[in-house]
Amino acid sequence: MRSIDGGVTRARGFRANGVRAGIKMQGNDVGFIASDTPAIAAAVFTTNQIQAAPVMWSQRNVLKKGNIQAIIANSGNANACTGGTGLEHAAIMGSGLASQLGISTDAVLVASTGVIGVPLPIDKVVAVLDALVRTAASTPEAGEAAAQAIMTTDTFMKQAAVEIELGGQSVVIGGMSKGSGMIHPNMATMLGFITTDVAIAQPLLDKALTTVTQDTFNMISVDGDTSTNDMLVVLANGQAHNPPITCEDADYSAFVEGLQAVAQSLAKQIVRDGEGATKLLEVRVRSAGSKEQARRLIKSMLTSNLVKTAFFGEDPNWGRLLAAMGYAGVPFDASRIRITFISEHGQVVVMDESEPFPFDEHEAKHVLSARDIDVIVDLHEGVAEAVGWGCDLSYEYVRINGEYRT
Amino acid sequence: MRSIDGGVTRARGFRANGVRAGIKMQGNDVGFIASDTPAIAAAVFTTNQIQAAPVMWSQRNVLKKGNIQAIIANSGNANACTGGTGLEHAAIMGSGLASQLGISTDAVLVASTGVIGVPLPIDKVVAVLDALVRTAASTPEAGEAAAQAIMTTDTFMKQAAVEIELGGQSVVIGGMSKGSGMIHPNMATMLGFITTDVAIAQPLLDKALTTVTQDTFNMISVDGDTSTNDMLVVLANGQAHNPPITCEDADYSAFVEGLQAVAQSLAKQIVRDGEGATKLLEVRVRSAGSKEQARRLIKSMLTSNLVKTAFFGEDPNWGRLLAAMGYAGVPFDASRIRITFISEHGQVVVMDESEPFPFDEHEAKHVLSARDIDVIVDLHEGVAEAVGWGCDLSYEYVRINGEYRT
Repeated sequence: MRSIDGGVTRARGFRANGVRAGIKMQGNDVGFIASDTPAIAAAVFTTNQIQAAPVMWSQRNVLKKGNIQAIIANSGNANACTGGTGLEHAAIMGSGLASQLGISTDAVLVASTGVIGVPLPIDKVVAVLDALVRTAASTPEAGEAAAQAIMTTDTFMKQAAVEIELGGQSVVIGGMSKGSGMIHPNMATMLGFITTDVAIAQPLLDKALTTVTQDTFNMISVDGDTSTNDMLVVLANGQAHNPPITCEDADYSAFVEGLQAVAQSLAKQIVRDGEGATKLLEVRVRSAGSKEQARRLIKSMLTSNLVKTAFFGEDPNWGRLLAAMGYAGVPFDASRIRITFISEHGQVVVMDESEPFPFDEHEAKHVLSARDIDVIVDLHEGVAEAVGWGCDLSYEYVRINGEYRT
Repeated sequence: MRSIDGGVTRARGFRANGVRAGIKMQGNDVGFIASDTPAIAAAVFTTNQIQAAPVMWSQRNVLKKGNIQAIIANSGNANACTGGTGLEHAAIMGSGLASQLGISTDAVLVASTGVIGVPLPIDKVVAVLDALVRTAASTPEAGEAAAQAIMTTDTFMKQAAVEIELGGQSVVIGGMSKGSGMIHPNMATMLGFITTDVAIAQPLLDKALTTVTQDTFNMISVDGDTSTNDMLVVLANGQAHNPPITCEDADYSAFVEGLQAVAQSLAKQIVRDGEGATKLLEVRVRSAGSKEQARRLIKSMLTSNLVKTAFFGEDPNWGRLLAAMGYAGVPFDASRIRITFISEHGQVVVMDESEPFPFDEHEAKHVLSARDIDVIVDLHEGVAEAVGWGCDLSYEYVRINGEYRT
């Protein structure tokens, strides 16, 4: 497996585009991805009970288990909490793109992101559909135009791609995603779109996506708020002409590994660009009793406002990590815990055998002054391990979200 | 029932004091409360798996079901995550006060609040015990000295008291509490101490406290972080000489009502003084399917960082309220919801029948510009109702918690 440049247009037979419709203040705000030939899809959606209209539309089409050949997405407006009108707007977006592409309405997924509770200016979307499709391409630039079209408070676009080899054939997996608030995916995620030219049976694509999501998008949190619009889709069109993956063999494992690399890169880019974030936190719980236990402890630490503000203040306040583990709602052995902070500036143990471990405050501050910080929590309880990513909570987070809508 | 001034020294036969031991930067940091005669106690403690040493000490003494006659508390250091040494320190505090008062060690509860993971400077505590007890009194000033001694990032001391009449006798219930971070009580609370001269059977005092906690301290949240040190205690010494309450009669109901008033006042003072708070939010869910459903929806709304920053920005972003209800993990009818914002400046409906309700942005902003804001969510699903209190998330919250320890 090797990392390569680009995103959703990198795999064979995919084109994309992004244009400005004028929904958000500036920049591209309507984008699409399409496979030249019928593709299969796997997708996971938000578990929020309040689902945005585009989520309902897309979930229905995915459940039909037919081909999914294209995705249309807009930013600047989430088309969520918009009632019956919202459902009509999602239908207009989906069927409008289908008609431009000459494919079935059932083959199009719809995604939206942005402000909740405001009717989508659907006329603006409809007005750009023709240009959107007409100027689409398979170039890196076209992929970037699409990646830009799904950005909201993101400060950079998020793409990732890898190339693997299956049965002597090169197979590409590329994707794009967007953050950067209301990020606390739960069995689903924000917006993430991955394309691949792999030939694979649909049930295995489903399984691969579910497996990978669990350890990547489901292990990040920016603010603890699960969105109404989360959606992660992978489209596979088989144009790599690899020997089709039909069972969980070595090729399947290699594909999962590639998908995992793309998903993890996109997920980490989201937290690195978390609203107002100044730190990327990687929290690893080792020697845990079970992976699920480790995951829940990690998520509790990463969502604690007190933990997040301590890292913003570069304060080695490990007691807040322990307190957050304590209310995670999952039992653990609290008697032999060791906590270590690591960064490019060195490493410092702050707790050992569940007792405060004497450390040099100045040195600890120096370790925490880095932008990327790893926290290692050793439970000494079993052999399981999990890792998750989050960010700090800064003044800028408050500014962005106190002023977002106005 | 009538509200009266004062706190823990208001009921007959209680004295208190607070002095400076030099644990925190400035002000009183060691305080105590004692009943002149044996009293009975009821208490609830943090559900955090990581329990501070004083919580372990106090919980054990409460479980012995004997008399509890005094409470000693310090601020500036939580004596949490301090290992075996921490347990020794809690024992020294408890037995030290017992010896000064000439009562059994089992009759003393210990509480601590402040920084986690730093050994308590126990010598400083021991050094002030004699003066603490010697200058104690039943005066309002002595009650205030104690209330000040448990403050950490609090900007004002928190006291409340009421007088009720039972069987022709005046009965007083008074209390004090402290905030103002790591506030997300779960079946327990921060530090809250209530004294009363009521004569009541211990099991009924237990029941009254549990009932009242559910609707008061357990319905507030400042930051979603459940502390390692939460403790709410009520001491009752019977000196009002009312006909003892031995069953759930009218007197019991009157006492619960009084206890509820004191607990609610203390709980609301905590969120009003939440770290960095500029708004007091009261969220009421009406016509719910069950009280538990309403409570969970309220807590999800009050802990959402996106909801909290929207109120800080005085932004009528009701979509975030709905999104937070959606991930609360409890089913509800999302088809007929009505949301109303109310303040001293008027009221505005922002959603009705689960569709956006056209409202004047300028007027809504004006309503939200008040310091106290009520949010009413009508589910139109049943007849249950609950109410909870929270605060906004401001720049100041980030400053306080990014710089707390250093």
